[in-house]
Amino acid sequence: MTEHTVWQPTSDVAERLKTLRHQVWQANMDLEHHNLVTFTWGNVSGIDRDSGLVVIKPSGVKYEELSAENMVVVDLHGEIIEGDLNPSSDTATHLELYRQFPEIGGIVHTHSPQATAWAQAGTAIPALGTTHADYFYGSIPCTRALSDDEIANDYELNTGKVIVETIADSEVLATPGILVKEHAPFTWGKDADQAVHNAVVVEVVAGMALQTLQINPDVRYINQALLDKHYLRKHGANAYYGQHQSSKK
Amino acid sequence: MTEHTVWQPTSDVAERLKTLRHQVWQANMDLEHHNLVTFTWGNVSGIDRDSGLVVIKPSGVKYEELSAENMVVVDLHGEIIEGDLNPSSDTATHLELYRQFPEIGGIVHTHSPQATAWAQAGTAIPALGTTHADYFYGSIPCTRALSDDEIANDYELNTGKVIVETIADSEVLATPGILVKEHAPFTWGKDADQAVHNAVVVEVVAGMALQTLQINPDVRYINQALLDKHYLRKHGANAYYGQHQSSKK
Amino acid sequence: MTEHTVWQPTSDVAERLKTLRHQVWQANMDLEHHNLVTFTWGNVSGIDRDSGLVVIKPSGVKYEELSAENMVVVDLHGEIIEGDLNPSSDTATHLELYRQFPEIGGIVHTHSPQATAWAQAGTAIPALGTTHADYFYGSIPCTRALSDDEIANDYELNTGKVIVETIADSEVLATPGILVKEHAPFTWGKDADQAVHNAVVVEVVAGMALQTLQINPDVRYINQALLDKHYLRKHGANAYYGQHQSSKK
Amino acid sequence: MTEHTVWQPTSDVAERLKTLRHQVWQANMDLEHHNLVTFTWGNVSGIDRDSGLVVIKPSGVKYEELSAENMVVVDLHGEIIEGDLNPSSDTATHLELYRQFPEIGGIVHTHSPQATAWAQAGTAIPALGTTHADYFYGSIPCTRALSDDEIANDYELNTGKVIVETIADSEVLATPGILVKEHAPFTWGKDADQAVHNAVVVEVVAGMALQTLQINPDVRYINQALLDKHYLRKHGANAYYGQHQSSKK
Repeated sequence: MTEHTVWQPTSDVAERLKTLRHQVWQANMDLEHHNLVTFTWGNVSGIDRDSGLVVIKPSGVKYEELSAENMVVVDLHGEIIEGDLNPSSDTATHLELYRQFPEIGGIVHTHSPQATAWAQAGTAIPALGTTHADYFYGSIPCTRALSDDEIANDYELNTGKVIVETIADSEVLATPGILVKEHAPFTWGKDADQAVHNAVVVEVVAGMALQTLQINPDVRYINQALLDKHYLRKHGANAYYGQHQSSKK
Repeated sequence: MTEHTVWQPTSDVAERLKTLRHQVWQANMDLEHHNLVTFTWGNVSGIDRDSGLVVIKPSGVKYEELSAENMVVVDLHGEIIEGDLNPSSDTATHLELYRQFPEIGGIVHTHSPQATAWAQAGTAIPALGTTHADYFYGSIPCTRALSDDEIANDYELNTGKVIVETIADSEVLATPGILVKEHAPFTWGKDADQAVHNAVVVEVVAGMALQTLQINPDVRYINQALLDKHYLRKHGANAYYGQHQSSKK
Repeated sequence: MTEHTVWQPTSDVAERLKTLRHQVWQANMDLEHHNLVTFTWGNVSGIDRDSGLVVIKPSGVKYEELSAENMVVVDLHGEIIEGDLNPSSDTATHLELYRQFPEIGGIVHTHSPQATAWAQAGTAIPALGTTHADYFYGSIPCTRALSDDEIANDYELNTGKVIVETIADSEVLATPGILVKEHAPFTWGKDADQAVHNAVVVEVVAGMALQTLQINPDVRYINQALLDKHYLRKHGANAYYGQHQSSKK
Repeated sequence: MTEHTVWQPTSDVAERLKTLRHQVWQANMDLEHHNLVTFTWGNVSGIDRDSGLVVIKPSGVKYEELSAENMVVVDLHGEIIEGDLNPSSDTATHLELYRQFPEIGGIVHTHSPQATAWAQAGTAIPALGTTHADYFYGSIPCTRALSDDEIANDYELNTGKVIVETIADSEVLATPGILVKEHAPFTWGKDADQAVHNAVVVEVVAGMALQTLQINPDVRYINQALLDKHYLRKHGANAYYGQHQSSKK
């Protein structure tokens, strides 16, 4: 990508990147505010679809040292466009998701403990109630394990590929998160803020689901009609939750 | 309800509504203070019985943006009497409870995690100790599941109806809360503040009950004499807990 | 106790009571600081052994409204000596312990959730590690259930009696706490501050013990030699933990 | 060690000790900041390898009363070189580790609840995911129980010896922590700060591991290739996580 060594954004792109840097920085700080991260174990990115540029957290930098200015800008091939720091070690995973899912605008990765326990267990989080159904239209899936070869070569890229493989048959924004087996959750959304929102949801419903099964090991998957009702009263043309125009009578 | 389009409260009603708006706003903030809500997943309402007007949280508004002024006033038929925002999407549930239970003055709905786990498990929370008995005169019941038809049509109203159906044989203020199956808890009380208080109790005893059963799966329901003693030392004519007049010797 | 209606403390007693009021108020506030109380579900008392006067939290008053001045002073028969508020509804329990155990100077009652779960389970907390052994020289016992008659008449006094009955064969300061079956923990110590300290210990080891048994249901009671070592390195003539004189070489 | 009674550090040593006192004090405060300690149940030490002097927390002093100045300096034989307070009662354990493991520069001991539960259970924490693999190159081991004789005589020294015995076949910085059976965790690192970091990791993965096994009791040990990948992308010559030079391309 040698054409980028003298890269100069147009003023439009520069303006949008400035806004995106701030959004991505804020979303990273929100991760910590929601108690989803220990040390530096989490990262958020956001994409400017017009230019194909991605803003992402630098690798291993403490949250209190993060700023809009030290976020790293990479292109969809992983070239650093702006920034002096290494981008997140998980950058290749984020980029694969952006390349394959044009609907998504922000991605989050955490090791939030309750969701990570489900990932370590290699088990999808079943939809057991309306809290889950308000955000996920079905189970929160868990990927297969990566093969030794997929781990040894291009590990982070292959992590992205196994996510894409697992999500393939779903509508990506109706399943806005996943557990990577033996690893931890990734979530996404229309933008970085919504991806953070979904990271919180995954952590909360992960904890609720374990407790539910401890109370009643025979619990059934939520009634499909109730799943439909809750998901659709918050999403789509007929949503009526909140202050959206579509919900005004 | 076209007669309300030019609705003008009397000065008495206006004064009481002003007080009630403040109480309901405060009760909503207390929900967050007690860590019962994630994002906007909770709502509180209160009723002025003389005018039949209900003050309720607007739908999907962040807690930090709530104020006494942006609470929504509806009548018992669901017509918006004052307010520019949509009321909580659960308003029809609240209104059904106010219509059927004249004793109650405030209602709370949350997705607090431990109580929600019991709701997802479809299991009543058994009375296992005095913490529970101080507030609930018996188990915290769990409703039956709604039918597909009840979900598809007038879902929120039917949620209220299934609560009423389940509580029917109890004294409503002696069972000041319930779990809606596959959903989450609702609680109530003489006013909004007491409903919040009971929402905290349900969350705490939900967590205690699961741990109790994990320690001793054979635990028995609390001795009835102890349930009576604790409930009645806090409630009714012979109460002697706290600084109530009836407890002065 | 009509002789107390014109009770005037000597200046010595007045001075000591002033100090004790402050200590008991502070200890009550510490309960909340250590997250052991929800609402007003906890109380601390302390005794001045020379005068036989007990300072105790008023019943049902919010923590933020407590002060050294509104603590209630009662004698060992339960007569209110100073104070306009009702003393804790559990006062009779505290007094029975003070009467039967001259070694103790402070008592705490809470409904802290993990300890309460063990009490509801009716199960003593076994000594499974050194955290426990540093404070309790053996299991944290659980009382038998009270009979219906003991509940119906003089309930709080009988709660004290069943604690005394259960502790009878132990050295009371080496078993500085107990679980009352289907109810919650009581702890004590040389003074109110130490009783609060032990209330924290009971809550912490209650949580650890449940997790220990979940990891390994076959776990054995701690090696007696290790229990002896840890208890005795903190207590008694040969203690060498901390900055006590006896621990200086 | 009578030669130390008139001990005067060279100016170089004095300067390094001043820095180390500050680091060890800060590390002790970080333990509390990370919610790993209740009361005074935790201690951190650091060593200056050139002089063989160890800075350690005084025994039983409240965290708010700690300062760089009241840290205690001991030599590797346990003689107090500087300080008016008793050093931690666990000093002999720390010293044995420093003597046997020249690679380590800081040590932490806590009773953090989830790790302590595994220690009480007498069970190594299996490596179940990448959160664990990022820091520990294999299970977090648990020592055998000490014999009655090892407990009765030189208990704290023998605690160090059983740790050394258990770690013997591992690379000590690749297994930077251990559970002492029926007791609690010890962790270490290149310096005091890294030892604190590892104490947090042990607590977090302890909680995740229990939840993982509750979700799926049949879960397998993490794929060895994934363990290798995660451990080695953060450690060693080919590390590429964070902003280390070795990770710059």
